[in-house]
Amino acid sequence: MADGLLDVVGIGNAIVDVLSQAEPSLLHEQDMPLGSMNLIDDARADALYDLMGPGVEMSGGSAGNTMAGIASLGGAGAFIGKVHDDALGQVFTHDLRAAGVEFTTAHLSDGPATARCLVFVTPDAQRTMATYLGACVELGPEDIDVSTIARAQVTYLEGYLWDPPRAKEAFRKAIKVTHDAGRKVALTLSDPFCVDRYRGEFLELLQGDVDIVFANESEITSLYQVGNFDDALQKVRGHCEIAALTRGERGSLVIRGDEVHGVDAAEVGEIVDTTGAGDLYAAGFLYGLTHGHGLRRCGEIGGIAAAEIIGHFGARPEHNLADLASRAA
Amino acid sequence: MADGLLDVVGIGNAIVDVLSQAEPSLLHEQDMPLGSMNLIDDARADALYDLMGPGVEMSGGSAGNTMAGIASLGGAGAFIGKVHDDALGQVFTHDLRAAGVEFTTAHLSDGPATARCLVFVTPDAQRTMATYLGACVELGPEDIDVSTIARAQVTYLEGYLWDPPRAKEAFRKAIKVTHDAGRKVALTLSDPFCVDRYRGEFLELLQGDVDIVFANESEITSLYQVGNFDDALQKVRGHCEIAALTRGERGSLVIRGDEVHGVDAAEVGEIVDTTGAGDLYAAGFLYGLTHGHGLRRCGEIGGIAAAEIIGHFGARPEHNLADLASRAA
Repeated sequence: MADGLLDVVGIGNAIVDVLSQAEPSLLHEQDMPLGSMNLIDDARADALYDLMGPGVEMSGGSAGNTMAGIASLGGAGAFIGKVHDDALGQVFTHDLRAAGVEFTTAHLSDGPATARCLVFVTPDAQRTMATYLGACVELGPEDIDVSTIARAQVTYLEGYLWDPPRAKEAFRKAIKVTHDAGRKVALTLSDPFCVDRYRGEFLELLQGDVDIVFANESEITSLYQVGNFDDALQKVRGHCEIAALTRGERGSLVIRGDEVHGVDAAEVGEIVDTTGAGDLYAAGFLYGLTHGHGLRRCGEIGGIAAAEIIGHFGARPEHNLADLASRAA
Repeated sequence: MADGLLDVVGIGNAIVDVLSQAEPSLLHEQDMPLGSMNLIDDARADALYDLMGPGVEMSGGSAGNTMAGIASLGGAGAFIGKVHDDALGQVFTHDLRAAGVEFTTAHLSDGPATARCLVFVTPDAQRTMATYLGACVELGPEDIDVSTIARAQVTYLEGYLWDPPRAKEAFRKAIKVTHDAGRKVALTLSDPFCVDRYRGEFLELLQGDVDIVFANESEITSLYQVGNFDDALQKVRGHCEIAALTRGERGSLVIRGDEVHGVDAAEVGEIVDTTGAGDLYAAGFLYGLTHGHGLRRCGEIGGIAAAEIIGHFGARPEHNLADLASRAA
């Protein structure tokens, strides 16, 4: 396994989610805009946790969710990210490996605890997040294993990696190593607040460093600071080889040069929790791309994986995605 | 809060559940009978966890689940149990307090970690459990807070408490203190394997020490070593003031002396995971009893609470039980 070929290697913040139902009023009182991801320190994490209802813990992290999705589709993947060797770090490691994802990044034996994300799910199925990065701030270029990167067709990076300071260096090293190996770099813009924090750097990355970009409507319009989706679309198609832009129930738009596909969203039953929808769209899309599918089918598989994840609580698949995708083929 | 009157104080093993879907073949290979609860040591817990699929962590423990249910019904409750002051101990404490249950038992600062229960949920919605008792083995009579017991109408004990050696002393002290305060003692037989381990002691407890007993069909027939439910019924009615015997989809039978009620099961949609059905039946029943309801209504509320819990993954209520109970009144 540790020397076989890989479809995708994901690099991201290694986080355990604590999910709880919450009323919007709690989030207003705590100055957290609905749908936002807020970075918090340890003390604030404790204070917010005290205000939170009974929770459910499950492994998360954007790129971690994507890699679990690729494995559930039958793809071969690896993950690079930093946990502490504590109870939550063991949970994160177990869950990723049990899903079939290779994960060998060295654990911290001292320093900050494994990252936690307090996920407040409001009755509208939206999630508002407060993330304590913990051990993630220790991820550095020394963790970017060159041989793992070289074994994978695509290196997938999450925009959130720009938050922990040393991870940027890891991020830049990963891009260089990937391109040196003749492989592709994919990036998700992660969330509009993240785009706001790193707009200049993300714009630079998209002009040469990133081959495949994932973004939803609010992220891509925020990146280019334009008022409408089509304006952003015209900009991004000049920058990246492939752009996969998601628009919730309106499906996704996939562009490569002159090739453009408008892909309908997959059918969803009850929308329970939208956490991870973007992560799983990327999983389906990259699975398709690394298995020789056309762009339209890549977008369709992305939509199927996203539909599964929003039908239940949590951001890791509960059903075998390979079954769902083949049934919908 | 810490000096108000309480409806129920629950005493039990303080456990965080790790739930995962599993195939029956895995349990056969590991010599775990379907539906059983197996006590395991730390090394075996690690080995089994390695074999387990991706999991979800949530607070559990039989009496802990019951107390969360009573709080969700609007009742006032406290819990006595032992956790380590580690990440899972903090999760357990948070979840119980966030549910509205008083929990002040001193945490361990060294010694064994907080107890974990690996819950394997098979496609038939049955759960097979492997429990590492950890910090629970440190619960002793010094943890039985006399003033808390005296504030509660009922002291509720789980049979599983006979597994950690010093907890028996705590158990016996709790019975004495409860009766000295003129209060009632309730016991759940927990599971047929537990009954097998402590049959003699449980039979003794039922003849004088326990006022209210909860058992399902396999537990009560195992206790009296009889082949049929009705034989067990005739025996238990001579022993305890109140017996509430559950029979799955056939509802429950509630007996107090000459008073007998056959209570239909509440309607259930999809059966997802039966973990906690008995715990929540006890919650509903004891809520009813401590709020002046007749025995039949007590059984009905128990059935409503049990139906909620088997409709989703996990053993703590996801919906407000007070709303469900009043709608069904």
